[in-house]
Amino acid sequence: MTAADGLHASLFGESGVAECLSDRARLQAILDVEVALAEAEAQVGVIPAAAVAPIRQAARADLYDRSVLVREAPRAGNIAIPLIEQLTRLVASIDLEASRYVHWGATSQDVLDTSLVLQLRAAAPRLDEHLDRAAAAAAEHARGYRLTPIAGRTWLQQATPTTFGLKAAGWLDALERARRHADDAFSEARVLQFGGASGTLAALGANALAVSRALANRLELELPPAPWHAHRDRFAHLACTLGVITGTLGKIARDVALLSQTEVREAYAGEAGGSSTMPHKRNPVAAGVAIAATVRVPGLVSSMLSAMPQEHERGLGGWQAEWDVVPQILLLTAGAARAVADALNALVVDAARMRNNLDITHGMTQAEAIVIALGPHLGKRQAHALVEAACARAAAEARALADVLAEDAVVTGVMTRQAIEQCLAPDAYLGAADEFVERILSTWKRT
Amino acid sequence: MTAADGLHASLFGESGVAECLSDRARLQAILDVEVALAEAEAQVGVIPAAAVAPIRQAARADLYDRSVLVREAPRAGNIAIPLIEQLTRLVASIDLEASRYVHWGATSQDVLDTSLVLQLRAAAPRLDEHLDRAAAAAAEHARGYRLTPIAGRTWLQQATPTTFGLKAAGWLDALERARRHADDAFSEARVLQFGGASGTLAALGANALAVSRALANRLELELPPAPWHAHRDRFAHLACTLGVITGTLGKIARDVALLSQTEVREAYAGEAGGSSTMPHKRNPVAAGVAIAATVRVPGLVSSMLSAMPQEHERGLGGWQAEWDVVPQILLLTAGAARAVADALNALVVDAARMRNNLDITHGMTQAEAIVIALGPHLGKRQAHALVEAACARAAAEARALADVLAEDAVVTGVMTRQAIEQCLAPDAYLGAADEFVERILSTWKRT
Amino acid sequence: MTAADGLHASLFGESGVAECLSDRARLQAILDVEVALAEAEAQVGVIPAAAVAPIRQAARADLYDRSVLVREAPRAGNIAIPLIEQLTRLVASIDLEASRYVHWGATSQDVLDTSLVLQLRAAAPRLDEHLDRAAAAAAEHARGYRLTPIAGRTWLQQATPTTFGLKAAGWLDALERARRHADDAFSEARVLQFGGASGTLAALGANALAVSRALANRLELELPPAPWHAHRDRFAHLACTLGVITGTLGKIARDVALLSQTEVREAYAGEAGGSSTMPHKRNPVAAGVAIAATVRVPGLVSSMLSAMPQEHERGLGGWQAEWDVVPQILLLTAGAARAVADALNALVVDAARMRNNLDITHGMTQAEAIVIALGPHLGKRQAHALVEAACARAAAEARALADVLAEDAVVTGVMTRQAIEQCLAPDAYLGAADEFVERILSTWKRT
Amino acid sequence: MTAADGLHASLFGESGVAECLSDRARLQAILDVEVALAEAEAQVGVIPAAAVAPIRQAARADLYDRSVLVREAPRAGNIAIPLIEQLTRLVASIDLEASRYVHWGATSQDVLDTSLVLQLRAAAPRLDEHLDRAAAAAAEHARGYRLTPIAGRTWLQQATPTTFGLKAAGWLDALERARRHADDAFSEARVLQFGGASGTLAALGANALAVSRALANRLELELPPAPWHAHRDRFAHLACTLGVITGTLGKIARDVALLSQTEVREAYAGEAGGSSTMPHKRNPVAAGVAIAATVRVPGLVSSMLSAMPQEHERGLGGWQAEWDVVPQILLLTAGAARAVADALNALVVDAARMRNNLDITHGMTQAEAIVIALGPHLGKRQAHALVEAACARAAAEARALADVLAEDAVVTGVMTRQAIEQCLAPDAYLGAADEFVERILSTWKRT
Repeated sequence: MTAADGLHASLFGESGVAECLSDRARLQAILDVEVALAEAEAQVGVIPAAAVAPIRQAARADLYDRSVLVREAPRAGNIAIPLIEQLTRLVASIDLEASRYVHWGATSQDVLDTSLVLQLRAAAPRLDEHLDRAAAAAAEHARGYRLTPIAGRTWLQQATPTTFGLKAAGWLDALERARRHADDAFSEARVLQFGGASGTLAALGANALAVSRALANRLELELPPAPWHAHRDRFAHLACTLGVITGTLGKIARDVALLSQTEVREAYAGEAGGSSTMPHKRNPVAAGVAIAATVRVPGLVSSMLSAMPQEHERGLGGWQAEWDVVPQILLLTAGAARAVADALNALVVDAARMRNNLDITHGMTQAEAIVIALGPHLGKRQAHALVEAACARAAAEARALADVLAEDAVVTGVMTRQAIEQCLAPDAYLGAADEFVERILSTWKRT
Repeated sequence: MTAADGLHASLFGESGVAECLSDRARLQAILDVEVALAEAEAQVGVIPAAAVAPIRQAARADLYDRSVLVREAPRAGNIAIPLIEQLTRLVASIDLEASRYVHWGATSQDVLDTSLVLQLRAAAPRLDEHLDRAAAAAAEHARGYRLTPIAGRTWLQQATPTTFGLKAAGWLDALERARRHADDAFSEARVLQFGGASGTLAALGANALAVSRALANRLELELPPAPWHAHRDRFAHLACTLGVITGTLGKIARDVALLSQTEVREAYAGEAGGSSTMPHKRNPVAAGVAIAATVRVPGLVSSMLSAMPQEHERGLGGWQAEWDVVPQILLLTAGAARAVADALNALVVDAARMRNNLDITHGMTQAEAIVIALGPHLGKRQAHALVEAACARAAAEARALADVLAEDAVVTGVMTRQAIEQCLAPDAYLGAADEFVERILSTWKRT
Repeated sequence: MTAADGLHASLFGESGVAECLSDRARLQAILDVEVALAEAEAQVGVIPAAAVAPIRQAARADLYDRSVLVREAPRAGNIAIPLIEQLTRLVASIDLEASRYVHWGATSQDVLDTSLVLQLRAAAPRLDEHLDRAAAAAAEHARGYRLTPIAGRTWLQQATPTTFGLKAAGWLDALERARRHADDAFSEARVLQFGGASGTLAALGANALAVSRALANRLELELPPAPWHAHRDRFAHLACTLGVITGTLGKIARDVALLSQTEVREAYAGEAGGSSTMPHKRNPVAAGVAIAATVRVPGLVSSMLSAMPQEHERGLGGWQAEWDVVPQILLLTAGAARAVADALNALVVDAARMRNNLDITHGMTQAEAIVIALGPHLGKRQAHALVEAACARAAAEARALADVLAEDAVVTGVMTRQAIEQCLAPDAYLGAADEFVERILSTWKRT
Repeated sequence: MTAADGLHASLFGESGVAECLSDRARLQAILDVEVALAEAEAQVGVIPAAAVAPIRQAARADLYDRSVLVREAPRAGNIAIPLIEQLTRLVASIDLEASRYVHWGATSQDVLDTSLVLQLRAAAPRLDEHLDRAAAAAAEHARGYRLTPIAGRTWLQQATPTTFGLKAAGWLDALERARRHADDAFSEARVLQFGGASGTLAALGANALAVSRALANRLELELPPAPWHAHRDRFAHLACTLGVITGTLGKIARDVALLSQTEVREAYAGEAGGSSTMPHKRNPVAAGVAIAATVRVPGLVSSMLSAMPQEHERGLGGWQAEWDVVPQILLLTAGAARAVADALNALVVDAARMRNNLDITHGMTQAEAIVIALGPHLGKRQAHALVEAACARAAAEARALADVLAEDAVVTGVMTRQAIEQCLAPDAYLGAADEFVERILSTWKRT
């Protein structure tokens, strides 16, 4: 149910992240927290130093009977309780005295939250790596195609031209914001949970803060000012951040998928998938994976937000809802990042096709240039109306816009035929596209 | 990732449903569709009859290498393609000729959609069984406590009294609506998907409809007027219906959890979970499971709705997003149903505590009865104002409302002290509660 | 905040529905319930017959001071309380005695829920009308273009051909399911809410059911077995149904938008919107409205589901959350239906362009026909591999698939050049498309 | 539809924010952007300086005919186009020449996005003010009740004691994180949108960046490296941040509502709402408003994330979906902040009732203290089992836990009766609660 062990983990997820979030990794992370707890408590003198080694020895996930955990979970309400029971028995079989100090002073939520933090920390670099790969590929496209005209498209209609380089630079800029936000949110979530039954660490008496500090040090986690059992904003914020990143990846994937359409074919995925029935097809599988993630992650993020109003010191239902949702979000986001990185790296760009597609409208995508040229003479509104009428006529009669304009005395009173044609050349109407690419690339550290 | 094989499947899910939705069951269901397809095509004469037996022989999920599926899925874009490749090879090893007819005329989506329909059909009775168990328990409480006063509570404040029987009858009524809706939605979704590459079944030529009919018959599914690859409303509608059912279960679970509070304790779960640190606690684990489902399912439902606008004949991302989401919704809903059925069956009801809690306000919960009694004499607004003032005074002075009212000449001008006290007895102000219970029980078939 | 009075109501909404859901309509609907309540209570003899006329006289929304309601709402927690206070004062100014019987025995939620039911009932026919308009237009396209080939498209790639008629028939079939579901859900929600303070109607004593029946009769609403203050499944189910309908509308709108792309241009909206800067553009505004609805409605539906677990007899937060969400969902769905009906009715279909686009791949979209033709001779897998290789070569060398195939001895050993070309003609590979159109049209009542 | 002008704006929203987000404010903000654009272009020399004054003169929202905007919006696809048309006409009536330079070089999305940024900037301080008020009240409670024992509650069951001060300090800490995140997200969103038709500013030729800089300066907004029409992560991130803040507010509101229950009554809202039928009731209206927000906002946030994959240079449906959703989220978050600030400031705390409620379990909430005390002697597991049994017996026999323990020879072998009782005193088992309060207060700037 955590998303990391199923048939689809390789399709929608990312292998490294899936490994960090697998059931086995979850159990090991809980056991790691128990070991660190025993070490910290021995260090402070709360439990005997001799108790640590047996606990450490028993804390290997593969020693545990998964079927017992699964059977006991519904009674206990979580998997930590039966796992700790098994751990205690196992420690007892090594050293009865040591078994008395297993999980000393902690509550289930302490080890479940903290172990999730450890899993997230382990997985984070893989997400970053793919975002970085995607950004590097986008940067390459931005540099390589900074002067390559392509139809700008708004409302799925060709608008004035832009460059493929600027499109790719837009992706790059968004990916860099994504990486920065991921970094911040993972950092903020890298915090110890340790409060005992009601968040007071009463069971540790005067040693509460000393043990907390030692535990945070051993796990290399931030020590928060106080336990935060029912305050879930850090995890929610991380989930949201991953949601925004998925949205950015989905935007790029959608662009790629639209450019790959049979009728557009300006860029397409070299690695694309086959079809069981249509040998000619090259399906944009990677883009599909990222788009699927943008369908799934928003709902999961809303679940994280809905889970937030948790009752009193520890909640009923809200907290439990997070257990599978946080890993699913991360796995889907990492899968989308992997897919987009793959797609951008394997992207075959067809600049000639871009140029050809710009000619579909016989010059109308550059119509605005004429409006601008006529504006100072006729006023923007009149210029707009005149060009709108000329476009309508060109479209109706399937003629080049330049030809229609050249017949209009109002236009020729202001512009020569040559000026009209210069105006309508895509390369002549790219505005600040190149400067924008430069601004984005110059802030990208590896340019 | 389908939710059915993970560590938490036993906690948040339901074992029978989890089995129907496991990775293994998914593979088997796809293989079952391939077998039925071969049978139908042989029956119509599209493929040789001799091809069927080898295909049937090879169609056992445990013959397949899961790791190959997982490895190939990202290239193919789904698990059906590599599974069919393995199937074809396996059939070829039995009978080379037969292997030519594997998956004949079908597309991946045909077998993925239809196999999901089969899985849903297999799982549906388990959900119904738990809803039925929950309803039966609610009916028992409704009958058993039809005259037992309990504080009505609105805004989490005690309001006028009601009966525990009516509360339980409200649960019953909602559960019966839930069952009826589940029945309708599962029935509507029990429909064949079969359209080939673009939904025309062109590969089957003139036999298209004959094969479709034969296939629907063999699988005991409805034959729709046409393939529906990119029209997902039936699945979306089923997902929504499960979402509403989860909401109803969550409402019951929340009531149970609130009644179980240490300070209220009017009813509590006998089967409740222990705590790793607090031996006195009896956690309402089952209620928590259902509440967690109500946190998770709404987001999953919104994903199903967001997935609906699928492009052209078969979509890019939207369809793929459904694969794990539909099973997750069903598993969580079934888990919530199981949990609520368990909770209601194990519910310990404390009628005495209900009565005691009604006395907390010293009669104020029945204050409305006084308003009603005074109304015809003073008008509703004045009566309301008078009683509001009396309540404020009773609260401020911590006295019984009857005593305060008995000092008010306006009141005593209309009612005797005895009439005031009768008015303020909870049992005397239960309105049509019993009739409402009767109306609900009488529509419940097993009463 | 109810969505019906804002600047965007005409863009994203529907004027008739907006009127039914306006602030003014909401106030009037509450007042209508108050009048019907007085009439029912007078009929049963609970209040004097003479009280009815003054209440009826005062129950006109335009007599009320909206600013007072807005000011008082935060104190009262809803708008019904201050509205009833104003109503009572107004009645008192007409007939002091009558004012004593305003809102007799009811609670705020009774009139808020029931008035919302009345508003929904009033608005429902407008939604149906637009769905019907959309269905009629889809039926017309299905009939008119039943034999018109168009590229089937999966993963946004051209697949085997289908017909524009079948595409439109698929829309029609889904729209008809949408209408049927809307009808069911609106019917189910047409139910009286009447329970008084805690759902027992205690204030009405023995007359509770008689008044309930009379009130349901007057309002022409179903009388439920019991009040359902905290059981919200009917509204949630309606919200979900509208969510599914919006999804269906979004699927159609997305198809239209994709067909309208400058590079595809097989169909486009005649009524399309202009651009402030690009005179040549014809933006698919109506499609955009419907797609925007599919982005917004899923989240709103999830809010309705999240709102369901309402506490005890009347909830704290969940119910209140519904007030603006239900109207928003309906308004957006109706707006999407209006937009899709407009788009389909104004759709300009370019069959020649459909045919031209089919030629982009030089026959590859019909490659499956060759696989099918070769299959019986070579086996499906080998045939698939052969054709896949031929397609790759045709694509790489930009040649017609027929030419490449005609050079392959394995192919020509089985098929003549003419047979190859016949196989690759789009019209020859439409399978059961026409039968599917017929099946759908024949179930459509007005064919 | 923007949420700010409806009947419920005062209940669920916040007056100052509603004003910033009203239809009127939206129109004015668009007009403000047009004025700043003209000024910037005149400054750079793109348009004549004389054009500015007439544009400025015409740019007053109350000069515009709202009904025309509403009527034209569906044709144009947004309200900016008809507004700019009206503006141009109005300027023309003042100075025909100036009217030629209205909206020069910009596209609708430039002014719609930038004007929304201006509205958000105007509204942000009001949210911060309420969060600050809430934090100050929480700090006051944290200080005032730092040693006041209250039952810690987990799973809605009494657990070991904590202090009301620590509960309030937890609120404070979360509110401070909320403020910090709000500040960051609003800052990041304070960025100019200016790209013209396709994001290249081609219409401005070589002056593109100079005008951009001048415009950003005039509006006091950040100049991004490039236009970001289809990259919505900044708005999505802001929406998410507001979603997390709403979740934090909902958690506090839920705590307050639960503490206010008639049966708990440890703290309650002094400003609570009345009831139309139950004069004794004090409804926690403010808490209800915040909880309603936590039901509504998660779905709205998911819409913002779903809207992100916007097509190419400007999207179709996704962008349009944001227009009403961003304001709704902010309005609901601000309303929740206002409500929680009100609730915490008006909170009546009953420390005696807290102490009384701790006695409900006859000492069992402190049972853990006995486990801890016995642990070193018996081992944690045995100690746990012994105390669990003693609790069960105490509960079954309705006796004090101390009495039951005092009869157990194993216990008395280790502890005296007096030691048992000391162990079971709530004040003696508060752990590091006070230190945690101190740590939180010390990071709060105004302590």
